[in-house]
Amino acid sequence: MGDLAFSRVEKINSELFALTYGAMVMQLIKDYEDVDAINTHLEQMGFNIGCRLVDEFFAKSHIAQCADFRETAEIIAKVGFKMFLGVTGEVINWNQDGTEFSLVLTDNPLTEFVELPDQYRNLWYQNVLCGVIRGSLDMLMMRVEAKFVRCVLRGDEASEIRVTLKEIIADKVPGEDD
Amino acid sequence: MGDLAFSRVEKINSELFALTYGAMVMQLIKDYEDVDAINTHLEQMGFNIGCRLVDEFFAKSHIAQCADFRETAEIIAKVGFKMFLGVTGEVINWNQDGTEFSLVLTDNPLTEFVELPDQYRNLWYQNVLCGVIRGSLDMLMMRVEAKFVRCVLRGDEASEIRVTLKEIIADKVPGEDD
Repeated sequence: MGDLAFSRVEKINSELFALTYGAMVMQLIKDYEDVDAINTHLEQMGFNIGCRLVDEFFAKSHIAQCADFRETAEIIAKVGFKMFLGVTGEVINWNQDGTEFSLVLTDNPLTEFVELPDQYRNLWYQNVLCGVIRGSLDMLMMRVEAKFVRCVLRGDEASEIRVTLKEIIADKVPGEDD
Repeated sequence: MGDLAFSRVEKINSELFALTYGAMVMQLIKDYEDVDAINTHLEQMGFNIGCRLVDEFFAKSHIAQCADFRETAEIIAKVGFKMFLGVTGEVINWNQDGTEFSLVLTDNPLTEFVELPDQYRNLWYQNVLCGVIRGSLDMLMMRVEAKFVRCVLRGDEASEIRVTLKEIIADKVPGEDD
């Protein structure tokens, strides 16, 4: 399903994307210096991007709606990431009540050619992805928190985003029909 | 040839690229305010990107070398742009001594979803492309100047980059063999 969706979208070279994203992070480093501020900024940029990508997602994936948060997680990993970045992720480590999972990525065009200098060891270079997840789910009335807990650029074997469902915003205000 | 090269490279969704590029330009607008400074900065970013893309170009296009500047222009338009942005350009308006041409682009993922507010009417939003052309040719010992003269985002029918060959840097310093 992810492959099919990916085949339907317009594409560009992933190296050009990686270098453009790198140039943007460099610009933020110049602007903010403080690593925490850069992480926050990348996430916020991702949020805005996610809010806009969600239309493209439904237009090209031909997916109508997800039954629950578990299915949502799988769709993000297998269709969303495939469709936009050309790679798929793995969903692991659900918590007991099914409100929290980890999305694990190995290969990923964003991290190509990147080496983090020592003074930026606390930078979550790919943090835009957390924002994209949060922004797109926000458009679908799911308020989540997404944050990196591992990153290949810090020497970890894989990159891992922990996603926590905070709130599902009901379509109807309770009592509306009364 | 461009199609073949494009089929060989890794790809990502062009909408994600367009939104990421847009976020970068927004960041520069916040940083510099002055439109000329933004234009210069975008070009410089493109230069750095072009210097790095040239390896990918030769690795995937299977092109060995261009016979002359005229062929170089056609390869940029038909193979380079296709391979990286998924679109091709037209080469027109050569000057008499074959050192200056225009590259004309109509559709282009960079300009998707973009509307320039009035106060940024002098922004060359796609200026990164001029830098990419200059940077990649610089790596091939051709010193060029590239600048936009028309842009669809300013209401023009097409976008046009004027490219001028300034100098071909000889492999050998004259007199080296003496």
